[in-house]
Amino acid sequence: MGAMSSVPRLFVTHDLVAGQPVLLDEKQGKYLTRVMRLESGAPVRVFNGRDGEWHGHLRQESSKKVSIVADEQTRKQVATPDLTLLFAPLKKTRTDFVVEKACELGVRRIQPVMTERTQASRVRSDRLQAVVIEAAEQTERMDIPTVADDVSFFESLERWDPAIPLYYCDEAGDAAPMADVLAGAGSIAAGLLIGPEGGFSPAERQKLRSLDFVVPVTLGPRILRAETAVVSALTLWQSSVGDWSEHPYLAEKASS
Amino acid sequence: MGAMSSVPRLFVTHDLVAGQPVLLDEKQGKYLTRVMRLESGAPVRVFNGRDGEWHGHLRQESSKKVSIVADEQTRKQVATPDLTLLFAPLKKTRTDFVVEKACELGVRRIQPVMTERTQASRVRSDRLQAVVIEAAEQTERMDIPTVADDVSFFESLERWDPAIPLYYCDEAGDAAPMADVLAGAGSIAAGLLIGPEGGFSPAERQKLRSLDFVVPVTLGPRILRAETAVVSALTLWQSSVGDWSEHPYLAEKASS
Repeated sequence: MGAMSSVPRLFVTHDLVAGQPVLLDEKQGKYLTRVMRLESGAPVRVFNGRDGEWHGHLRQESSKKVSIVADEQTRKQVATPDLTLLFAPLKKTRTDFVVEKACELGVRRIQPVMTERTQASRVRSDRLQAVVIEAAEQTERMDIPTVADDVSFFESLERWDPAIPLYYCDEAGDAAPMADVLAGAGSIAAGLLIGPEGGFSPAERQKLRSLDFVVPVTLGPRILRAETAVVSALTLWQSSVGDWSEHPYLAEKASS
Repeated sequence: MGAMSSVPRLFVTHDLVAGQPVLLDEKQGKYLTRVMRLESGAPVRVFNGRDGEWHGHLRQESSKKVSIVADEQTRKQVATPDLTLLFAPLKKTRTDFVVEKACELGVRRIQPVMTERTQASRVRSDRLQAVVIEAAEQTERMDIPTVADDVSFFESLERWDPAIPLYYCDEAGDAAPMADVLAGAGSIAAGLLIGPEGGFSPAERQKLRSLDFVVPVTLGPRILRAETAVVSALTLWQSSVGDWSEHPYLAEKASS
């Protein structure tokens, strides 16, 4: 789809202050100098999820030490919509795909949920953290979604704030189309729960049906795979309730 | 997401008539008897894109010959919305992914378009045909989208019916959110054009901007990868203009 800019964009955990060098870890440093072949003075972009986006430049401190010097803030920090994805882990590459797309589509929190029919073993949230950092760097996002450790299905529901609607895709036949449900949504926070390939078990289904904050929705007449349902449902929420109706450059112009 | 039924579902090209056996090709026959381990009499579902969906059973004619006997029509034929996806081919697995998702999300036609910055070599539409057949079998779709041979960007626009809107995702900054544009859409037919990773060239952009039937839209403040943009844009169209607001089982009940 064409990047906004070909200047490399990097997530760091340090505070960003004009003129202050930020020492990169070895892996990031190597990537910029060995893979990207950047030299001292090369322009880079950095963000940390708190201080907006900065234009800066690379500084080779020694053969193994590479810093970024932040020169100027170019975008203000903006909050990602208050959207949480709860999903039953799939096989490794498909779990990575789901997490990457959740980051691109602007969720704030990602919560793996182990259901009765979840085939995958437990996920390593540290590995998924690396996936979301890379996705955030490439998608012009200003922050990184959190990736929680996996919890059981029933625990995830017990922990859920009942004031916030939790949408789940139900193929049983009597749920309303998601767009119609969202058109009447009063809340600007939400959760989306995507079940495993084998569907929820009868006990899980019964639990979902018994909770007032859980809202069943449908995603059309065809059966979507889990990863497609994630992208489709996040798209509808962002488009209807989230930040897709605000254009960032217009918004930034208006606020400056 | 849980299949509607665990009975195998098969696309065939033959006419479907009650009691009439349909001889499968060797590959399909082998799949059912060797991989799925089905024996004579095992229930199967079949569809051909014309005669609805049928429940039937397997009949082993000889050691190498396997037929399906259609017993009863269980779903009427329904038309897939009049939606065409034009996309610039990506690397092989990502092209397969786009084509699979387009089938799941209910497009009628898939048209690969070679743009100036398309990195991929020409696509083999016969290989993609196999991808859409498998996706249609799994997604409970009643037909198979057509996959055309690739054409050049400019030719694809020359061939386009100017009475039908062709949406394309434009990050230049002044396009309206896709959901807003679709809310005012008068046409029930549409095309969606997704460009290559490197974006359209200046000449291509200028051409798009000059055509009245081409409608630029945005998909939110983050940069989406090409395959994400395909799923998101198809979702918004199906949800707003297409068939996601009609539930197939309710619709079938109403018409029977």
